[in-house]
Amino acid sequence: MQPSRLAALRFELSRQGLDGFLVPRADEHLGEYVPPNAERLAWLTGFTGSAGLAVVLAEQAVLFVDGRYVLQAASQTDPAQWQRKHITDELPQPWLAGAAPGQRIGYDPLLISEEGLQRFSDAGVTMVPVEPNPIDVVWTDRPSPPLSPAEPHPLHYAGLAAAQKRDQVAAALREARQDAAVITDPASLAWLLNIRGSDVPFTPFALGFALLHADATVELFMAPQKLPEPTRAWLGDGVTVQDRPALSQALERLAGKRVRVDPANTPVWFAQRLRQAGGVVVAGMDPCLLPKASKNPVEQQGARAAQTRDATALCRFLHWLDGAAGRESELSAAQHLLALRAALPGFRGESFAAISCAGEHGAITHYRVSPETSRPIRADELYLIDSGAQFPDGTTDVTRTVWTGPDTPPAELRDRFTRVLKGHIAIATLIFPQGVGGAHLDAFARRALWQQGLDFDHGTGHGVGSYLSVHEGPVSLSRLAKPVPIAAGMILSNEPGFYAPGRFGIRLENLVLVQPANFPAAAKPFLRFETLTLAPFDRRLVDAVLLDATELAWLNAYHARVLAEIGPRLDADTRSWLRAACAPMPR
Amino acid sequence: MQPSRLAALRFELSRQGLDGFLVPRADEHLGEYVPPNAERLAWLTGFTGSAGLAVVLAEQAVLFVDGRYVLQAASQTDPAQWQRKHITDELPQPWLAGAAPGQRIGYDPLLISEEGLQRFSDAGVTMVPVEPNPIDVVWTDRPSPPLSPAEPHPLHYAGLAAAQKRDQVAAALREARQDAAVITDPASLAWLLNIRGSDVPFTPFALGFALLHADATVELFMAPQKLPEPTRAWLGDGVTVQDRPALSQALERLAGKRVRVDPANTPVWFAQRLRQAGGVVVAGMDPCLLPKASKNPVEQQGARAAQTRDATALCRFLHWLDGAAGRESELSAAQHLLALRAALPGFRGESFAAISCAGEHGAITHYRVSPETSRPIRADELYLIDSGAQFPDGTTDVTRTVWTGPDTPPAELRDRFTRVLKGHIAIATLIFPQGVGGAHLDAFARRALWQQGLDFDHGTGHGVGSYLSVHEGPVSLSRLAKPVPIAAGMILSNEPGFYAPGRFGIRLENLVLVQPANFPAAAKPFLRFETLTLAPFDRRLVDAVLLDATELAWLNAYHARVLAEIGPRLDADTRSWLRAACAPMPR
Repeated sequence: MQPSRLAALRFELSRQGLDGFLVPRADEHLGEYVPPNAERLAWLTGFTGSAGLAVVLAEQAVLFVDGRYVLQAASQTDPAQWQRKHITDELPQPWLAGAAPGQRIGYDPLLISEEGLQRFSDAGVTMVPVEPNPIDVVWTDRPSPPLSPAEPHPLHYAGLAAAQKRDQVAAALREARQDAAVITDPASLAWLLNIRGSDVPFTPFALGFALLHADATVELFMAPQKLPEPTRAWLGDGVTVQDRPALSQALERLAGKRVRVDPANTPVWFAQRLRQAGGVVVAGMDPCLLPKASKNPVEQQGARAAQTRDATALCRFLHWLDGAAGRESELSAAQHLLALRAALPGFRGESFAAISCAGEHGAITHYRVSPETSRPIRADELYLIDSGAQFPDGTTDVTRTVWTGPDTPPAELRDRFTRVLKGHIAIATLIFPQGVGGAHLDAFARRALWQQGLDFDHGTGHGVGSYLSVHEGPVSLSRLAKPVPIAAGMILSNEPGFYAPGRFGIRLENLVLVQPANFPAAAKPFLRFETLTLAPFDRRLVDAVLLDATELAWLNAYHARVLAEIGPRLDADTRSWLRAACAPMPR
Repeated sequence: MQPSRLAALRFELSRQGLDGFLVPRADEHLGEYVPPNAERLAWLTGFTGSAGLAVVLAEQAVLFVDGRYVLQAASQTDPAQWQRKHITDELPQPWLAGAAPGQRIGYDPLLISEEGLQRFSDAGVTMVPVEPNPIDVVWTDRPSPPLSPAEPHPLHYAGLAAAQKRDQVAAALREARQDAAVITDPASLAWLLNIRGSDVPFTPFALGFALLHADATVELFMAPQKLPEPTRAWLGDGVTVQDRPALSQALERLAGKRVRVDPANTPVWFAQRLRQAGGVVVAGMDPCLLPKASKNPVEQQGARAAQTRDATALCRFLHWLDGAAGRESELSAAQHLLALRAALPGFRGESFAAISCAGEHGAITHYRVSPETSRPIRADELYLIDSGAQFPDGTTDVTRTVWTGPDTPPAELRDRFTRVLKGHIAIATLIFPQGVGGAHLDAFARRALWQQGLDFDHGTGHGVGSYLSVHEGPVSLSRLAKPVPIAAGMILSNEPGFYAPGRFGIRLENLVLVQPANFPAAAKPFLRFETLTLAPFDRRLVDAVLLDATELAWLNAYHARVLAEIGPRLDADTRSWLRAACAPMPR
């Protein structure tokens, strides 16, 4: 079957006078989760991972994937057709410049940002925009786009009326002397208009586009079937609704206007269409990103409530896990946690596919458990569970790593676990001035590992939405973080780890809320982190000798808080387990 | 006198059809120190600070300076002619866009980088290149350019023959498929050709330009008088010499070639001239910067030797200082230290103007002592001395802050001093993986201050040259550091501080050398810092209770090393003082 797909695409490319074509794993919103109609990469190659890029030339076809997908790409694609390359070992841009010098390489301008396109042009590749996508021409049984209804996100969760949000963002546009902004991130739409949906898994938004005008009105482009009457009424007078095909003409109406377009997160199609129409494209960050990232007091209170409910399920799960070795599997454990969460008031689904992994699977950072991969949870090994939930008042994301017992863990594991914990505590206790970005703080989570020549190969943390994406920009704790200052109200994950390939993995993750730090005499404002997530860290894996007095005091105070806040919400059995799990550790 | 200068400039501008003109404090090398013939800003405005920008319009003239020069600018310029603005409170680019909408603003393309120019264009200012500089037309008694002779920098200091350096850098150009690189930084020239000079104060290089070709030949543009026969012979066959005026034609000969030009550090004139001539300008960092920053083993050994010699002078000075309160002044102290250094073998001058400041002057980060500003050193206050020297085997830069006694310092000062010291030790003991940049490490120097809502308003460290600039790129320890990885062989300063305006200042600075950290089992290479500078920290100001066990151990080990390495090189009196100053501190 696949041969004919690749051959059909090549035939279509040559018909259009193209020498090659890019097939990224992307939809028109450049989002993390992609609806079935946008799964072009999977349709063409067979590869179903969440990130990848195929480059189809006349004589060769290459699939670029990152480290977590090397094995999966090899097993899912036909080696007779596809070369597989590790995207960080060999960047696609210089490879393509060398493999196809002077050739015309097509791309779908709805599936790549202006900055992404620029990287190919800078490498010397001749890039040709193609509409419609040649794959859509040959993909005859392509699914329809999702049409789940959008629903109001009520004020007692959102905390701020959509009209006020539109006013606030429009004021920022006017301040920058911009007439409008293009909104292509469905999470921005969801925040701005106080609506939610279910077009993709895990993230409760409705796919759509919008133009926000400097007068605070919004043109929303969304299939009318997705907007039942109550939702339309909820949107209010300032929002007009048009179907997706009206978008192109709406951009043409912006001739002569200064329009903000995000060069990193918006498909380049928008900037191209605006320029053709005589609009002035001003590169700038999606104006919803910063206000969305800083949660208002109602959202903050919602986050605390959601975390508390979520913690009761997690504590029950950790208690249950204590006897799981030899009896349960990675898959049954994930299913048990999901069942415990599903019973919680307000549970709307997982915020991502839980990572449930035992022993050597723990070292696979993005391990996905399935009936095929699941392995038993055995005695005397590490078990790692990274999971989260969507509630209307908040999104959760938590990782714990536990020892399955019954014996004491080996010294190496306790050393590594404690160093990861030291990194976690370093972030949790940090105080820092306003203006600092995530790139400046990430190293605190690593120092205890670095001192032994150890490290972990992912960022320390990511932003988290309010009943929205569990991976939310623009701020992260990472060497690669954008230079955007961390601000009060942001929710970030604090998740250092350590991974020994083929042996074990450790990750310790809480969510933290950025709060003002109170120094009345300070010359400038300072910030601190309030830890939101409440669940014990496995004391059997802590080597208290490696903790200094401040770190040990933090751990004991955190455990006391977990017991005080979650204990009363648990059945007697789990509460008694939690009391032991939260007992103060001596030096 | 000044009125006629500004009036004469305005007349010349209107003659050339310009509405305004930029006068930066810059020479054709965009360097830190500027020869007298390039002191156009001082000639026009009277302001002699080391950084500033004048904007001359028909009806107004504005001088932009940073925080350290606000008072000096006010005292040196005529308020009837010049508005003075704080450059970080009001950026010149948006100010100019607002003050002169649609007007033609001239600039000298030899005095601004491509990135600097871009910031004005991005703000919407219409920028017009002007040659020759209109100031030069009206500055009738402008000095001649300096003509100090360039001298060979022998191999036992340089460590690597110029021919090998040229081969190495040319190979990097070929790898990037570039035909040539423009070299406008005299420090790069000095490193590449193994020559030194004395055209500007403090930095021992000869002003000049070069084109480095991919075949490893160099066209050097420098006044022939500056190259006596032995220096010419030393340059060798691969280097041809032409006078400065031949530069323009040489760029024209690069038509059709791909030429690397540094967009941040090279005057935009070069890129403009190359493009006019049909050359392809490839934006890229000066190819000498990275190899120059990573000192070779001979330079590293030279640095250690220079530091050891320098330390004997500094220890003698600190001993002398112990009885200086009430008797000496900021100026006499700086002169005494200079005299002690001048007696050292190989001393070639200061590496910058020493910052010698007592009490409240310590809070002025770039305080410059002069007969007018000098104040007595009094009892029971802080005295800060930041100074350095040029030796042919190395460049030094060291800061110590001492208590003048006789009473015990107040608790506040000991607290602040110890927190600065904790930051200094955090950097000194850091181990980190290759690939990390200075922006990721800077915060370690601040954490102990941040925890109390305190901070300091400068970077933690800068690169240091080898008998070259004491402020050397491309790497620094700073939130604003370029994203260039720290690499083995680099020399950086480690200089956290704390400043209480109007009261006191603290800064503790050693130079550190980046070394490989030896972890045989590590999955990737790690780096560490070797502290090069050897002089005691004032134990009277250390509150050992605030130090954890590791920090106290570092301090005591460092002092033991200072005593062991410097003690034997001192007279008996100073040695006995040093023994007390380096005595181990108990908890």
